[in-house]
Amino acid sequence: MSKITSEQMRFWSPEVRELEPYVPGEQPKIQNLLKLNTNENPYPPSPKVVEAVQAVLENSADVLRLYPDPDASLLKQAIATQQNIDASHVFVGNGSDEVLAHIFKAFFVQEQPVLYPDITYSFYPVYSQFFGVKTKILPLNDDFEIVVNDYKQANGGIIITNPNAPTSIALGLSAIEEVLQSNPDSVVVIDEAYVDFGAESAVSLVAKYENLVVCQTTSKSRSLAGLRVGFAIAQPHLIAALEAVKNSFNSYPMDRFAIAAAVASFDDQAYFEAQCQKVIDSREKLVADLAAMGLKVLPSKANFIFASLPHKDAGELAAELRQRGIIVRYFNKPRINQYLRITIGTDEQNQRLVDTLKNDILA
Amino acid sequence: MSKITSEQMRFWSPEVRELEPYVPGEQPKIQNLLKLNTNENPYPPSPKVVEAVQAVLENSADVLRLYPDPDASLLKQAIATQQNIDASHVFVGNGSDEVLAHIFKAFFVQEQPVLYPDITYSFYPVYSQFFGVKTKILPLNDDFEIVVNDYKQANGGIIITNPNAPTSIALGLSAIEEVLQSNPDSVVVIDEAYVDFGAESAVSLVAKYENLVVCQTTSKSRSLAGLRVGFAIAQPHLIAALEAVKNSFNSYPMDRFAIAAAVASFDDQAYFEAQCQKVIDSREKLVADLAAMGLKVLPSKANFIFASLPHKDAGELAAELRQRGIIVRYFNKPRINQYLRITIGTDEQNQRLVDTLKNDILA
Repeated sequence: MSKITSEQMRFWSPEVRELEPYVPGEQPKIQNLLKLNTNENPYPPSPKVVEAVQAVLENSADVLRLYPDPDASLLKQAIATQQNIDASHVFVGNGSDEVLAHIFKAFFVQEQPVLYPDITYSFYPVYSQFFGVKTKILPLNDDFEIVVNDYKQANGGIIITNPNAPTSIALGLSAIEEVLQSNPDSVVVIDEAYVDFGAESAVSLVAKYENLVVCQTTSKSRSLAGLRVGFAIAQPHLIAALEAVKNSFNSYPMDRFAIAAAVASFDDQAYFEAQCQKVIDSREKLVADLAAMGLKVLPSKANFIFASLPHKDAGELAAELRQRGIIVRYFNKPRINQYLRITIGTDEQNQRLVDTLKNDILA
Repeated sequence: MSKITSEQMRFWSPEVRELEPYVPGEQPKIQNLLKLNTNENPYPPSPKVVEAVQAVLENSADVLRLYPDPDASLLKQAIATQQNIDASHVFVGNGSDEVLAHIFKAFFVQEQPVLYPDITYSFYPVYSQFFGVKTKILPLNDDFEIVVNDYKQANGGIIITNPNAPTSIALGLSAIEEVLQSNPDSVVVIDEAYVDFGAESAVSLVAKYENLVVCQTTSKSRSLAGLRVGFAIAQPHLIAALEAVKNSFNSYPMDRFAIAAAVASFDDQAYFEAQCQKVIDSREKLVADLAAMGLKVLPSKANFIFASLPHKDAGELAAELRQRGIIVRYFNKPRINQYLRITIGTDEQNQRLVDTLKNDILA
């Protein structure tokens, strides 16, 4: 894009001139790269997803021309059934990024600052700036763990990614309950984008805590990153705030294909569990292989690992991997600029990474 | 939904407690209703749309698990080709409602108020409240026309639906140029959701005016309401503001099915033109039939008409039509509460409406 002159800038809203947007992981358009950089699932979605979209197409004359259900009721019900809750506890959105954006607007525009860790999902500061949310950033400890006691101060809300990203480290439910109980007047959001790969979900706490919002996505554990379906689970008085925000922004965020495909995914629990287990098994093997080569790998409950090499610059390592056709995510930021975030691939893909390191880069 | 207590309300952001969300037209879940209430197209989308989604499905293992292109470059290029402009002038979003939301944030959060008519798309006041945009509402004249001279006062932006909704009346390009020239320091947005049914598009003015944003949708003229694809066309320094806003809210709003299907629609210009002409022809016939029965019908350039009966309450008429299986849109609002907005159906559907009025309700 060519440079925008200050004269042209007069058309922008003043606050928009200051925005520092989120930068998503690279989606390369070249083929044959081993893409371990955006935490996608190496396996396809349930075959029932394809069947469900086929069924929409067979009826396309009648449905594509018509607006979708603005409430996506079928999808809310499918999620509710799978999560063993009532559909009145479910909110859906165009990817969990949209759900999180609505969460920031619905709950966090407060006098007091929102609390979150220094190392976490890098969209949180972006949402905060976008909606004018005050923030107080709390450092993880030296082992990259969340310090629960830090979350017992005055605040206008709390958001914790669990397992955290990009660290991959999970917090137990007792720690989350401690945060919930210490903040009875604040909304506590647990962002569980990666929870299905071995961490404990806080959905089981929703009935007990009127201040809890759990956010999840179909992008990782359900292999539907290409579809854009995220959701939140909370008591109805919190869901109502999300609906008020959504209906002040976009009435129909979920298209007919997304609704049908996601419903089919939630209906196929056996496939879901099997694929998650495959990723977990592959992760444990990869962690062992990398540890054996001297890499430091943080304890992961996610579909990625966060790893470093004591005697090699992480940025250089990422560049050398890329030269060999393997993309991983490198964050050139304080505290984590000597780590790489590596998505778990299939066993064959992970072996290619291990072999490239062992026989080539570190040989 | 059960009532929310004031104690539960403490969790909501204070500004969200005050929101008055948009209420979309009813999407009834019962069958066999003649649905003339949400301005959907009576014809299916291009057969190439179905083929394009089929092609995605055939490759689903490789694509659904992967994030879509966050820039939706293929879609921007398809729109640019069809509109005969450069792709750098195109912004895409999850329905034109999302595009309009981003427009309000990107350009209209200003010291001066945004100008728009008293009778227009009822989402504009909702966006204004949501983003804290000041507004100054300018009445249409007694013939429900926009008074161009009113749009020559200090403002922080202007938005005009053209053809206007729910009035169906179009403004000519010379009037729009007058507004653009009178406001060289404000962004002027022309919301052309219905432009393809006989009005003149301002896209031809984008190269000439650095303050013009044109917004369109695939929901009406391309029969893709079920898909959620809208777009804006403007010079790159304005597109950049929309991208900054979008990337501060949701990086990947367009899913892989939506991108593929919309590209196929824009590639099939012949089908598009033929379907639009069919709707226009049906509209002219319906207007003549209703006028012959004594209804007052405003001059329409849209895929709907705005009509009233001199001796019958419009709200009652809507209710009586509904009892007979025909849904139209009734707005119980000042100035327009004696009009009905009626979507143009197929000739057969329109005849059913005419017959029901002639032989039954008005018999």
